[in-house]
Amino acid sequence: MAGQDFRFGIASSASYLPRRAVTADELAALCSIPADLVAARYGVRRRHYAAPDETSSAMAAWAAGQALAEAGWEPASLDVIVGACGVMEQPIPGTAVLVQRRLGLGSSGIPAYDINATCLSFLMALDRVLAGFALGEWRRALIFSADIASAALDYSDPEASLLFGDGAAAVLLEADGPHCRLSHRFRTYGEAAEACRLEAGGTRLRPRDDLEDFLARSRFRMNGRAVFSATARQFPGFLEEVLGAAGVAPDGIDLIVPHQASAPALEHLKRSLPGGHARCVDCFADVGNLIATSLPYALHLARGEGRLTPGSTVLLIGSSAGVSLGGAVLRL
Amino acid sequence: MAGQDFRFGIASSASYLPRRAVTADELAALCSIPADLVAARYGVRRRHYAAPDETSSAMAAWAAGQALAEAGWEPASLDVIVGACGVMEQPIPGTAVLVQRRLGLGSSGIPAYDINATCLSFLMALDRVLAGFALGEWRRALIFSADIASAALDYSDPEASLLFGDGAAAVLLEADGPHCRLSHRFRTYGEAAEACRLEAGGTRLRPRDDLEDFLARSRFRMNGRAVFSATARQFPGFLEEVLGAAGVAPDGIDLIVPHQASAPALEHLKRSLPGGHARCVDCFADVGNLIATSLPYALHLARGEGRLTPGSTVLLIGSSAGVSLGGAVLRL
Repeated sequence: MAGQDFRFGIASSASYLPRRAVTADELAALCSIPADLVAARYGVRRRHYAAPDETSSAMAAWAAGQALAEAGWEPASLDVIVGACGVMEQPIPGTAVLVQRRLGLGSSGIPAYDINATCLSFLMALDRVLAGFALGEWRRALIFSADIASAALDYSDPEASLLFGDGAAAVLLEADGPHCRLSHRFRTYGEAAEACRLEAGGTRLRPRDDLEDFLARSRFRMNGRAVFSATARQFPGFLEEVLGAAGVAPDGIDLIVPHQASAPALEHLKRSLPGGHARCVDCFADVGNLIATSLPYALHLARGEGRLTPGSTVLLIGSSAGVSLGGAVLRL
Repeated sequence: MAGQDFRFGIASSASYLPRRAVTADELAALCSIPADLVAARYGVRRRHYAAPDETSSAMAAWAAGQALAEAGWEPASLDVIVGACGVMEQPIPGTAVLVQRRLGLGSSGIPAYDINATCLSFLMALDRVLAGFALGEWRRALIFSADIASAALDYSDPEASLLFGDGAAAVLLEADGPHCRLSHRFRTYGEAAEACRLEAGGTRLRPRDDLEDFLARSRFRMNGRAVFSATARQFPGFLEEVLGAAGVAPDGIDLIVPHQASAPALEHLKRSLPGGHARCVDCFADVGNLIATSLPYALHLARGEGRLTPGSTVLLIGSSAGVSLGGAVLRL
C-alpha cells in the first residue's frame, strides 16, 4: 500500500486568539528597544498574549466548540481527539484529556491523546489521523493545537521573543472527503537539538535542586544562526522530495500553508517556489509564530479567505525544534 | 479495512534500570513510616531512582542501543523513532529527538517524535506504528519509553509515592513479522482528570508568578479512591470489549502484560481473568509503576523469561491518568 493517496475531508475549522493584543509599542517597551525596530527589523505588528483563564485547553476547547457548531457535528460523534501542541498545559494528564473534558465529553470514552513534534505537531497528528482513516479505524477526528509561548519568553532577546504569540486552532476531519494527501515527509536532525530549546518543565531540571538554574532555563532559548543554518542546509532537498513524492512540479503548488517560523524563514520559503509571495499564507506580522498552532491557524485563515479552492494543490510545510522539517502536499 | 489484523514482529527489546536501588528500609525512612509497612501494606520490595546523568533520553538510548545490538540492526536502518514517555525530559525539543541524537543519528533525518497518553503512551505509539506498517509506510520502528517519576514524588503521601520507580525500555518492531494484533481499544474519561495530576511544568503554572504554588504543584498528586472508582467502573465492560473485538474468550488469554499501576490494580486485573495470577507479568514489588515505561518493561521481562511463546495469545492492558483505559490482544 506504499504510495497510496490518503483521502479525507475538512469538515470545519476554527481558531482562537487571546483577548489581549499587544501592540508594537508595548513590545518595544518589553524588549527595551526603539519602537520602530519592532516592525522594521522584526516584521512584527502585534502579538496576542493569553490571560490566566486562557489556558491551552480553554483556548483549544473554544476553537473546537466553534468548529463543531459550524460542522453541525455532535461532539459525541467524534471517534478520536488528538492534541497537537508544542508545549503541554501540564505534564499529567495531557492537554487532549483536558480538552475532551471541556467539550463535555468527560464521560464519553472518546480516545484523547497527544502527539508532539514541537512546531510540527499538527502535521504529524494529521499524518496519523489520515492513517486511521485509510485503515477504516475512524470516521471523524478532532485535531487541535494550542500554545502559550508568552509563558517562556525572554525579552532581553528580542530576536527570539518577538517571534512568538499565543493562540489555538481546531480542525475537524472526516474520512472519505474530497481531499487527497499526495505526499508526506518528515525528517529530524537531532544534531541541532540545542538550537531551539526550553529545558525547564520536564524531569531533568528540578526547581528544588537549583532554583536559579531552573528559572534561567524556564525561558525559551534560540540560536537563530544555528537554526537557520541547520534548516537551510536541508530545505532545498527536502522540498524537492515532498513535491517529487506527490508528482507535483514547483509551479504546480497553488497555495503554501506554512508554519510561521519567522519573517526571514517565510521569505526564504516564498523565494523557493514560483509565485511564492502571492501563494503563501503569511500571518506572521499579526499573530507571529504560534508554535504548533501556526500551521492549523494558517490553514483556517486560508479556508476563511476562500483560498482552499476545489482541485487546488496545497503545500503544508515547516520546520520545528529538533530540528525537524515536515511537509505534505494536498489535492483539495 | 476495518477489523483487519495488524501484522508485525518484535525484533528485540531491552530495558534500563537506574544504578541506585532504594531498599524498603530507605523508602520507609523517606516516607517516615514503619519499615515493615513498605512491603506489607504497599507491596514494595525496592525501587530504582535515577541519578542526574540517568536522564530519560540517556536511559532510553542505553536500552535502544542494546536492542539494536541484539537485533543486529544498523541504527540508520530505522524508519521512525517514536518516544512514548509519560513525562518528557524537557518541553523543547522532545525526548525522541534527544534519543535520536544519542543514538548517533543526529544527521540521519530519521523521523523522531513523541506520543503521549501518560501511562499508556507505549500502547498508543504501538498502535500508530502498526498503522504505519499496515499502510506500508515503515519497515522498522523503534519505540522507547523512559520515565523519572522520582523527580516529582511527595513522600508525605506514601500511598502515591511508593508506587513509582524510574526506568526505560525500548522495543524494535518490524513489519510483516509473525505476530498479529487482533484488537486494540482505548477509552478516555476526562471527568476524572483531577484524580492523577502533575500540574507544574507546562504553560499554565509559572514559577515567576507564584513560586510557592508552583513548587507545591510540582509534586504528583493522586486521589487513589477516585482513580480506583473511575477505573473499576469502566474496566469490566472495557475488558469484554477488547477480548470480544479479538474474538478471544477470557480463558483464551495465555499471558497478561499489564501496566503496573499499583498492587491493588494488579490484583484486581488478575482476578478478572481465569488463571490470572499465574498468567500475569507482575514486577510491581521490584520496580513499581514506571509510568509509560511499565508496559514495555513488562513486555521485555516476559520476553526474557521466554513467556512470549509462538502462537500464544497476549493481552496488553492498563489504565492511565486521564483516566484512560487501553488494551490490545496479540497473537504471537
